[in-house]
Amino acid sequence: MGERNISVTLAYDGTDFSGWQIQRSQRTVQGVLEDVLKGMHGRRVPVTGAGRTDSGVHAHGQVANFVTDIASIPAEKYKEALNSNLPPDLRVIRSRLVDRDFDARRSARERIYKYYLYISSVGFPHHRRYCWRISRKPDIAYLNRIATGLLGEQDFTTFAAAGDTSKSRVRAVYAASFYPEGPFLIFEIAASSFLWKMVRSIVGTVLEIEQLEHGEERLKEILAVKDRSLAGLTAPARGLFLERILYNEHSKFSE
Amino acid sequence: MGERNISVTLAYDGTDFSGWQIQRSQRTVQGVLEDVLKGMHGRRVPVTGAGRTDSGVHAHGQVANFVTDIASIPAEKYKEALNSNLPPDLRVIRSRLVDRDFDARRSARERIYKYYLYISSVGFPHHRRYCWRISRKPDIAYLNRIATGLLGEQDFTTFAAAGDTSKSRVRAVYAASFYPEGPFLIFEIAASSFLWKMVRSIVGTVLEIEQLEHGEERLKEILAVKDRSLAGLTAPARGLFLERILYNEHSKFSE
Repeated sequence: MGERNISVTLAYDGTDFSGWQIQRSQRTVQGVLEDVLKGMHGRRVPVTGAGRTDSGVHAHGQVANFVTDIASIPAEKYKEALNSNLPPDLRVIRSRLVDRDFDARRSARERIYKYYLYISSVGFPHHRRYCWRISRKPDIAYLNRIATGLLGEQDFTTFAAAGDTSKSRVRAVYAASFYPEGPFLIFEIAASSFLWKMVRSIVGTVLEIEQLEHGEERLKEILAVKDRSLAGLTAPARGLFLERILYNEHSKFSE
Repeated sequence: MGERNISVTLAYDGTDFSGWQIQRSQRTVQGVLEDVLKGMHGRRVPVTGAGRTDSGVHAHGQVANFVTDIASIPAEKYKEALNSNLPPDLRVIRSRLVDRDFDARRSARERIYKYYLYISSVGFPHHRRYCWRISRKPDIAYLNRIATGLLGEQDFTTFAAAGDTSKSRVRAVYAASFYPEGPFLIFEIAASSFLWKMVRSIVGTVLEIEQLEHGEERLKEILAVKDRSLAGLTAPARGLFLERILYNEHSKFSE
């Protein structure tokens, strides 16, 4: 059977992970996955992830891939094989065979993140790890008018974190909107890819513009200036979920 | 102003509590509440709770009361005063002044519990503390036909835990049904009061009757025999939520 390229869709509770990327003596999602694969293969099996989620950030639909030479496990059964060895805060939702040239990161065409806001004067115990509580009730229509300033291909330097080393900070944002979902107010954003901490910086900034009534055009103005000091606070990691990764048709794969 | 009787509605994540009832060297909900009240009053202030939830059981709407002689805090402001000192897994949802004869436990007319089942082949990381995952998809209509056997005033000895010391095991069940709610299958039950571990024993038993196709009348039959050994397994605590407590009109209080 030789080598097969396996893609896995992952959900994780980011609370107790120091983010996606492998780091010495830190518990990371990539690190835990590679430890389990090493146990199965008897050697290191590198894992590539679509989104390098930050410490405390969650995932409903992260995608990763690895190349295996184990012939005895059908691609779809890696789900069970991995889950029986992974901790409960990291689960494989599905596994499947993909083209040999599929790369979870490079092949990704679009990333979708959701940010969970919880509008309440009291923090609800069962939500405390999975949302950002704000006591003020924002004007959702106004938030959405501000958010239209994010759309299109633009330089997002204003929303880059200190220490960002991207060569280009131009990204294409395809959709960005606020809407209620159950007890939450969701901010959902789809883009080609994101700068480090970009979504959390956008959430904090849009809420600040709305609260301080800086005007619907304010977001466009501060994007044009390309100055990080004009961004608002960075919303906490616990409200952010990597929701879904989209791939091109030719990779025969879309999550 | 003298002494005032204050009622509080509580939500808690039961995962890290050894249940409601105060116990030496254990972290309990009553114990944590009494510690905070002791800090505020400079002396022990006993707290009475409506439901003695077990270790790991959650609450959306537990009710408790205590008598205070602090004149400076309006009854409604105990919410903020307590929350600023309570841990994030225990929150006061509201506080209010109640009649002097109100007793959260004795005045309660009806208790409503919800049990959260999650039907999936994969445990979802963000739900893992708050539901019981079962991989088999049960027949909801059949579960509901079985559950009608719970209704009315009956002796629930069959569903009492070992070590139950109740004088009478007769309880009145007013409603019991299974229904979908978002990604969950909920079992909701309302009764005058419950025996220790009764709801979890009922959930395990009803699911077992459905799975083994023991017939819709089976529940009535094993209730009539009053024999604990006929009950199924006890469903895990993590799926159980004390949802709401109802009080008589004369207490001018209903949560």
